[in-house]
Amino acid sequence: MAKDKKMVTAITSMNEDFAQWYTDICKKAELVEYTSVKGCMVIRPYGYAIWENIQHILDGMFKETGHENVCMPMFIPESLLQKEKDHVEGFAPEVAWVTHGGSEKLEDRLCVRPTSETLFCEHYANIIHSYRDLPKLYNQWVSVVRWEKTTRPFLRSREFLWQEGHTIHATAEEAIIETEKMLNIYAQFCEESLAMPVVKGKKTESDKFAGAVSTYAIEALMHDGKALQAGTSHYFGDGFAKAFGIEYTDKENKHVFPHQTSWGVTTRLIGAVIMTHGDDNGLVLPPAVAPVQAVIIPIAQHKEGVLDKAGELLERLKKAGLRVKLDDSENSPGWKFAEYEMKGVPLRIEIGPKDIEAGQCVIASRWNGEKVSVSLDELESAVQQKLQEAHDGMYKKALENMDNRTYSCTTLDEIITALAENGDGFIKAMWCGEEACEDEVKEKTGVGSRCIPFMQEKISGTCVCCGKPAKHMVYWGKAY
Amino acid sequence: MAKDKKMVTAITSMNEDFAQWYTDICKKAELVEYTSVKGCMVIRPYGYAIWENIQHILDGMFKETGHENVCMPMFIPESLLQKEKDHVEGFAPEVAWVTHGGSEKLEDRLCVRPTSETLFCEHYANIIHSYRDLPKLYNQWVSVVRWEKTTRPFLRSREFLWQEGHTIHATAEEAIIETEKMLNIYAQFCEESLAMPVVKGKKTESDKFAGAVSTYAIEALMHDGKALQAGTSHYFGDGFAKAFGIEYTDKENKHVFPHQTSWGVTTRLIGAVIMTHGDDNGLVLPPAVAPVQAVIIPIAQHKEGVLDKAGELLERLKKAGLRVKLDDSENSPGWKFAEYEMKGVPLRIEIGPKDIEAGQCVIASRWNGEKVSVSLDELESAVQQKLQEAHDGMYKKALENMDNRTYSCTTLDEIITALAENGDGFIKAMWCGEEACEDEVKEKTGVGSRCIPFMQEKISGTCVCCGKPAKHMVYWGKAY
Repeated sequence: MAKDKKMVTAITSMNEDFAQWYTDICKKAELVEYTSVKGCMVIRPYGYAIWENIQHILDGMFKETGHENVCMPMFIPESLLQKEKDHVEGFAPEVAWVTHGGSEKLEDRLCVRPTSETLFCEHYANIIHSYRDLPKLYNQWVSVVRWEKTTRPFLRSREFLWQEGHTIHATAEEAIIETEKMLNIYAQFCEESLAMPVVKGKKTESDKFAGAVSTYAIEALMHDGKALQAGTSHYFGDGFAKAFGIEYTDKENKHVFPHQTSWGVTTRLIGAVIMTHGDDNGLVLPPAVAPVQAVIIPIAQHKEGVLDKAGELLERLKKAGLRVKLDDSENSPGWKFAEYEMKGVPLRIEIGPKDIEAGQCVIASRWNGEKVSVSLDELESAVQQKLQEAHDGMYKKALENMDNRTYSCTTLDEIITALAENGDGFIKAMWCGEEACEDEVKEKTGVGSRCIPFMQEKISGTCVCCGKPAKHMVYWGKAY
Repeated sequence: MAKDKKMVTAITSMNEDFAQWYTDICKKAELVEYTSVKGCMVIRPYGYAIWENIQHILDGMFKETGHENVCMPMFIPESLLQKEKDHVEGFAPEVAWVTHGGSEKLEDRLCVRPTSETLFCEHYANIIHSYRDLPKLYNQWVSVVRWEKTTRPFLRSREFLWQEGHTIHATAEEAIIETEKMLNIYAQFCEESLAMPVVKGKKTESDKFAGAVSTYAIEALMHDGKALQAGTSHYFGDGFAKAFGIEYTDKENKHVFPHQTSWGVTTRLIGAVIMTHGDDNGLVLPPAVAPVQAVIIPIAQHKEGVLDKAGELLERLKKAGLRVKLDDSENSPGWKFAEYEMKGVPLRIEIGPKDIEAGQCVIASRWNGEKVSVSLDELESAVQQKLQEAHDGMYKKALENMDNRTYSCTTLDEIITALAENGDGFIKAMWCGEEACEDEVKEKTGVGSRCIPFMQEKISGTCVCCGKPAKHMVYWGKAY
């Protein structure tokens, strides 16, 4: 069994080489596979099933809050992309250009969408005329392309899957409420479905989305102490409306520019799950998005009655609405244990002749390795309870990890010392609001501003860098 | 009310100009909107919700039959596309080429996938080694691009949404069974969910998919007598496996080439629904895929108790698992009637002061215009029954339409006469199997072979064209 286990779990240890550990999990848990297109990957069935679960839950939350799905073209004419000055400056350097359709050379080059603000604006200009047409609360689930130089599965790839919400409102106030609402939905999703704590806040001016008035983000802390931006929500004011000529007639018959937002999360969330919960045995999946929530492994399955009983448990748990799998393959139990550990299946249910005789089974929890015997009479409720415990335990552990790696500092020297002594993590420190100080903090300590959190604390009265009066408490960190 | 109605339903009559009638419905029912990218459209919320319902039902059928979803890149390197000779000849002339990433010129051009056989083959070559790795039953829901010259919403666009199944099997026999199984699933879906009868059959050699050994298709008949290919399923033999070097070791340790299939349906199905069930008042949607299955319209809604009662009906029907909407806007009932007729909502539920007094409501069926009064005590069961009747009635009507427009012919002259006297439709006629005759039928009568149906009939003993002994009965028609 020890040997079997080693064959499957031959992954680099997290402490030895974190980047290689991450890549090993992506490959060995069969989440992705590389292709001959640099920076583009195949998302394999097990990886895609995680995305489908994320999509299903989030889509439900979007629809609950009145959003509708649409589908825009994947191409943006160069002339359309250029309409909003800041936006095109931000994106033009990293888009893929289609220059030929069949054998015909295109007059206006088309880029493959890196994001779809311009397409939504063109559409809004067509369909919005009166205050009665507002708001429009649209979203789409598509892939986008950004020509990144260095790429890593889920974290940074040339093509990635995401959802992009694009809404348009009669007033600035409504649009700002929407921007904040969607950030809260993202944070709620991360906590309730990914068991991942996040910090909610506002990006500094230098870190805003191209064309936005303000950008909000949720930031999570990974096992290696680096920060990962897990979702963003942007308020655009009426800048895009003016650039694209979107106007409506209000109740007093005046022509007014509406106000817009956009917000998105990507397959990067899968990377965040790996680096928040994974360990040296592989992936550890939160129950809400795990493709298989419990795997049943028969012990001594050739013995009479074992497979029948295992099949019975499968049916019972399926009927209870759980995602369950029975592995009755010829592989040894040890091999199976290691495989489903690698794949991060939250619960393993073992059932063998002795268990059957005693009217019980063994439930092993992936997240903490705990094994308990459970009466078969209480199977459904025990499994549901163990899944809930797994979620709660994973969240608590991740929160403790984040708290333990968050350091309050009042000087640049304190930041340097904190990072040197403890390794990477979040730094909480005050800031005067000047970009020059933001740059200097990064240059001297290596950490950049992640966000100005909504939950402000007063670490000190002065900027960590220049010593002038502080305006905000900022989370700083190294970012993915 | 008459005036209101006219404002909404100002669409061209089907008999006057069928193409314009179709386009009018696409626009007025708010299914699509044009964009500045020629041949690419916005699928608006109401249109996209139909696609989501199609997707949800089909995805369930695929998963029930053991298929898993994956996601391949949207780009195919030119060198990869060229690996299978017939395939590249079929697709290269109509692909969009990406030549630049950011400011960098690409060494190997990338095409935007027109279909993904080559990407799946590359992946299979990486992950398949032993008979234990087979079969792989994969599917993906994505968009593809084909650089069409003339385009029409849903029917032919440069970018369209589809699913593409790609499976790989140890033996030819297994792969052929899969090809046929998926065609049957498509036919079952069209009948059970779209209320649309189809003819199942095999394409002739000249009409096969690029690279396939054989192509199966389902063909439906539209209101104008033209045939629409609604789904295809291809058997590839081991041709792709040989071209891409996909090999596995069988139980006797021999190296063997596996056998492949692919199969797909697209957003074209929405076009098929429009042209199978629509009328001069607009869209008529089959209940299974209608975004709104019943709309509640309060009559004299300012009168006390009306909106409360309408809201009560809404909650009851939602609770019964139906997709229901209450329109309590300020528009007049007449305007609302016309709007939901245009949008093809299967049932309209009217509730006014007199109905409330009598403890009833009125249910109007979109497909046949029938109005009945129903006791509120039986609301849920009555609505469910009316939806079932709508589905059954729509299917029967479409089947009768197809039967009435299907003509058995034994000579070319008979074909010409049948079409001249009755308008376009399906022609059933015998064929010797020679491509020359297939071409001559088309040239002389205007109808091409649609498929060799699985349900063969003997119309005569000889080919409709050359008079030599016939091999097959063929469905002929003009195609979308």
